[in-house]
Amino acid sequence: MEGSRRYDPIARSTPEHRKEAEIEFARVVAFSDGVFAIAITLLVLTLEIPPGLDDLGSALSEHGNDLFAYALSFAVIGKFWLAHHRFYGSLLRFDGMLMGLNLFYLAWIAIVPFSTDLLGNYSDEPASVIIYACNMAACSATFVIQIAYAYRRGLIRPEARPMEHRYAGPPNYLLVAVFLASIPVALLSV
Amino acid sequence: MEGSRRYDPIARSTPEHRKEAEIEFARVVAFSDGVFAIAITLLVLTLEIPPGLDDLGSALSEHGNDLFAYALSFAVIGKFWLAHHRFYGSLLRFDGMLMGLNLFYLAWIAIVPFSTDLLGNYSDEPASVIIYACNMAACSATFVIQIAYAYRRGLIRPEARPMEHRYAGPPNYLLVAVFLASIPVALLSV
Amino acid sequence: MEGSRRYDPIARSTPEHRKEAEIEFARVVAFSDGVFAIAITLLVLTLEIPPGLDDLGSALSEHGNDLFAYALSFAVIGKFWLAHHRFYGSLLRFDGMLMGLNLFYLAWIAIVPFSTDLLGNYSDEPASVIIYACNMAACSATFVIQIAYAYRRGLIRPEARPMEHRYAGPPNYLLVAVFLASIPVALLSV
Amino acid sequence: MEGSRRYDPIARSTPEHRKEAEIEFARVVAFSDGVFAIAITLLVLTLEIPPGLDDLGSALSEHGNDLFAYALSFAVIGKFWLAHHRFYGSLLRFDGMLMGLNLFYLAWIAIVPFSTDLLGNYSDEPASVIIYACNMAACSATFVIQIAYAYRRGLIRPEARPMEHRYAGPPNYLLVAVFLASIPVALLSV
Repeated sequence: MEGSRRYDPIARSTPEHRKEAEIEFARVVAFSDGVFAIAITLLVLTLEIPPGLDDLGSALSEHGNDLFAYALSFAVIGKFWLAHHRFYGSLLRFDGMLMGLNLFYLAWIAIVPFSTDLLGNYSDEPASVIIYACNMAACSATFVIQIAYAYRRGLIRPEARPMEHRYAGPPNYLLVAVFLASIPVALLSV
Repeated sequence: MEGSRRYDPIARSTPEHRKEAEIEFARVVAFSDGVFAIAITLLVLTLEIPPGLDDLGSALSEHGNDLFAYALSFAVIGKFWLAHHRFYGSLLRFDGMLMGLNLFYLAWIAIVPFSTDLLGNYSDEPASVIIYACNMAACSATFVIQIAYAYRRGLIRPEARPMEHRYAGPPNYLLVAVFLASIPVALLSV
Repeated sequence: MEGSRRYDPIARSTPEHRKEAEIEFARVVAFSDGVFAIAITLLVLTLEIPPGLDDLGSALSEHGNDLFAYALSFAVIGKFWLAHHRFYGSLLRFDGMLMGLNLFYLAWIAIVPFSTDLLGNYSDEPASVIIYACNMAACSATFVIQIAYAYRRGLIRPEARPMEHRYAGPPNYLLVAVFLASIPVALLSV
Repeated sequence: MEGSRRYDPIARSTPEHRKEAEIEFARVVAFSDGVFAIAITLLVLTLEIPPGLDDLGSALSEHGNDLFAYALSFAVIGKFWLAHHRFYGSLLRFDGMLMGLNLFYLAWIAIVPFSTDLLGNYSDEPASVIIYACNMAACSATFVIQIAYAYRRGLIRPEARPMEHRYAGPPNYLLVAVFLASIPVALLSV
């Protein structure tokens, strides 16, 4: 991201620029919230039942996995949104590189409806479980990268640093590890 | 939600933190509005008519139920949004638990396009009516739970408390009851 | 809408309530903008081309009507959004009834992707042209109703009243009439 | 756009009107961000895999092109959003004509999920590559037009003018040229 060099709205800290930076900050947050809100609401499209079936009851019972996948992904995206909300609340300022990392992170959030659909439709195939686990691990990993970058560059408010450091610490790598560990389990279960 | 313990942006009531809390509050509201707006607009996807039909007129007249389901759900989500709007307008502050409850509530709002699609396509099957009624009852119930929680925790502005108490009171349970009561009616009508 | 009686955030005009009302106003506007933005972006779904076709070129040329319908509806929704933007910019305050009318208006905006899809797929059938024209007439009519209501209730800023009156005046009824007049033309052309 | 004559919220520069203009500015930005966020999230719909396939593994490997197209378009829309973000951050004021140009630009952004779907499904057909390249060229061209218009009308903040001029300069035309140059390459590769 070459933007990180050219673009730092808070570098010149006159009041005017600070205010402008706040507006820009609000836009990044609003865009991220938009992607979260759309991704979480598009999950409903994974539940689709075709019209004109003879036996709706059995079609619905076969879609139990879809509903489970919907609930799981809604909870997961919701949890990621809460964490993103908390992380951006602790930011002192941001730069172009963090915006790029955030976009990269959002690309993994936005793809969750696809892996959810796959998990619901092919819950007995290890490939779908592996893809879902990789998706979740990628969300966690790119989020940890964002936090670690913001921490190293001093973009986090001083009073929030100890807390954010904890979030970017070992427990998070553990989460990535758990998601990745579910892959061989899925392979063995077949 | 362990977040309710760790996370209370207004606990330290210095002006700085108050301002920060306002930004956070705005994000929760914006995210909720996003989910409402997307869910209400995704309703249009339930109206889909396949291309290449020979007789468009009769296909359209068969989709009368779809249009009825669209109008009903648009009105219902709109009504829920107005109530959410009024409820959040009366909040003094919020905590992590309320954010979690709000997400749980939004999961039921976001699933309305699915149950609407089902109701439009299978309006003569009791299963679709039951699912729709359960969806509505779940929306009402999780909204009442939010209000009751906010009331008990003192998150509602003093001057708004009498009004909110009324919303969370018996009439709401009645609404849940009416939605649930429509289930046996649907079963009997078959 | 019983909300119009109970709910008037600006009735008590202390500075505190005025500020609160501004937040609420922002939410109504943000929700409306959300519906506009989603409806205008969902138009892209009307362009869908199935995978696995032998002759992509001829499939694309058959979809010329879809592209025309996309461009027309994008322009129309964009124009309606600009008008909504201008109208809400001229509002002094709002009430529950106006919120209800706005929701009713948005229901017609949100359905545009459906009538656009129909127009693109069945451009030689009068039924699709009639439905599209009715949709447009309903958007215009419900928008005029909103303006007329706001004008009569004194919700428009004094300096903006002459301008808004003009928008809600004869030219708008003309627009509704033009859309409706296209219906017999469509019928005759068959 | 006749709006450019009638509509200039900052022409009368009393503090009151300036504040009102800021609200309006925020709406245009929020609407644009909404379209960007929805278009970027709708890209996930291009990845769809039908349910009930016998061989999920081979279906997934055949969808490698879809994933490449998803990643490319996510990066491209993200890049356009960052540029739009920077451009609107440098605006001093806006007028109706710029709003119209912005809508025209957004029409090309909103159509990216369609051309992405085509590129993923028909990656070996020159028609899909040409359509994708034209879409990208149109996005670039309409963005350059916006910047050039804003520059000529003096809508850009004095201190940001040199920077914006560079963005609207030869490198951008080069970008349009590169996208268009990919068309004959696509034709030759067949």
